[in-house]
Amino acid sequence: MTKTDKTKQLVGEEVVDYIKDGMKVGLGSGSTMYYMIKKLGDRVKEGLDIEGVPTSNTTAEWAKEFGVPLTDFSKVQELDLAIDGADEVDPNLQLIKGGGGALVREKIVAASAKSFYVIVDESKMVTYLGNFLLPIEVLPFGWEVTANKISDFGCEPKIRKSKGEPFITDNGNYILDCNFEKIAEPKKLHEELKSLVGVVETGLFINMARKVMVGKDEKVDVIDQS
Amino acid sequence: MTKTDKTKQLVGEEVVDYIKDGMKVGLGSGSTMYYMIKKLGDRVKEGLDIEGVPTSNTTAEWAKEFGVPLTDFSKVQELDLAIDGADEVDPNLQLIKGGGGALVREKIVAASAKSFYVIVDESKMVTYLGNFLLPIEVLPFGWEVTANKISDFGCEPKIRKSKGEPFITDNGNYILDCNFEKIAEPKKLHEELKSLVGVVETGLFINMARKVMVGKDEKVDVIDQS
Repeated sequence: MTKTDKTKQLVGEEVVDYIKDGMKVGLGSGSTMYYMIKKLGDRVKEGLDIEGVPTSNTTAEWAKEFGVPLTDFSKVQELDLAIDGADEVDPNLQLIKGGGGALVREKIVAASAKSFYVIVDESKMVTYLGNFLLPIEVLPFGWEVTANKISDFGCEPKIRKSKGEPFITDNGNYILDCNFEKIAEPKKLHEELKSLVGVVETGLFINMARKVMVGKDEKVDVIDQS
Repeated sequence: MTKTDKTKQLVGEEVVDYIKDGMKVGLGSGSTMYYMIKKLGDRVKEGLDIEGVPTSNTTAEWAKEFGVPLTDFSKVQELDLAIDGADEVDPNLQLIKGGGGALVREKIVAASAKSFYVIVDESKMVTYLGNFLLPIEVLPFGWEVTANKISDFGCEPKIRKSKGEPFITDNGNYILDCNFEKIAEPKKLHEELKSLVGVVETGLFINMARKVMVGKDEKVDVIDQS
């Protein structure tokens, strides 16, 4: 196990302490979440009574493997807590997510929770968002027009590809990866981009994270929204 | 032919006079557009050189039937003129569209045109928008959560159905039909709804129509954006 994996395991396990009996919990995606779900499965075996809403098929498979009970939005429409990783976190706890392509489901789950906690290793902490390419989910119809309008905000959108064809999200849409480099005003940029016709959602998670847990070697720093 | 059909034919044919040689034209959907495309086909046979971008499969079929050449957004990203119908038009030329379920494609086409003209019969003119159910296109994932959030704006969203199953748009999404009854501030409502995660687009077309042509019995009134 690499040093980074050990850090991911540490923070992924530590966040489980916040999951209390009776909670409905949003389960994010990605490698740090793997450790979280594995540990959560141990707690369920010890008697913890919770239900999870997964943000991806992979997460759902891990939950089944480790014995974490699942539910969905047809049965429960408000979650107590959602937990997920992030691609970048700035000092105001604004995030970029969507490297894995599941940004919309992740945002719907996070937005439906009373609290949203983010778990990362310290490599994800940045002074300004934007070094990571901002993923924007767009409708396939007229995506070229939508990309043109997005480029007016100061980037060159590139359509994400998989095996030479456009990558298709779980919602049947495309992802444009946008090189903003330094996003001075994340909230404003998100609002302006989301207002464009053809844009389904952006990877900017604004004023959503209540708590960020940052794994650094063998300890975890906890940053609360001020 | 009913009186309404005659009115639709009148206004559908008259708008064709605005289509000039060399234009790229967005072709809306619906019964009034049928007459417009038929007349446009006559003009093409007489030598008018234009290309159209259709907003629905039905419109594309009419264009083929009447000999109107088509193109798409992979070849042309700015249109000279888009023409479409509407379900409601208020005195400020704000619109509700989407009764036919193609609101997103229609909005993408209208937004990519230098000018957008609307053709209706007088039954569509209203003092306030909202008597017609406002269609809102939403992602299937978590649509129950999205509907809950929309209901906070003072309506009871109903999922549109077709043969007992949710109606699926051309983009693979659902439509929620929302009974606002009287929309006092259409621009504000649109912006707030569109900002919700899970909302792809609303049927409110705000500050988009440059000109509305209203068929009344045997004449056409033209209202320009002030």
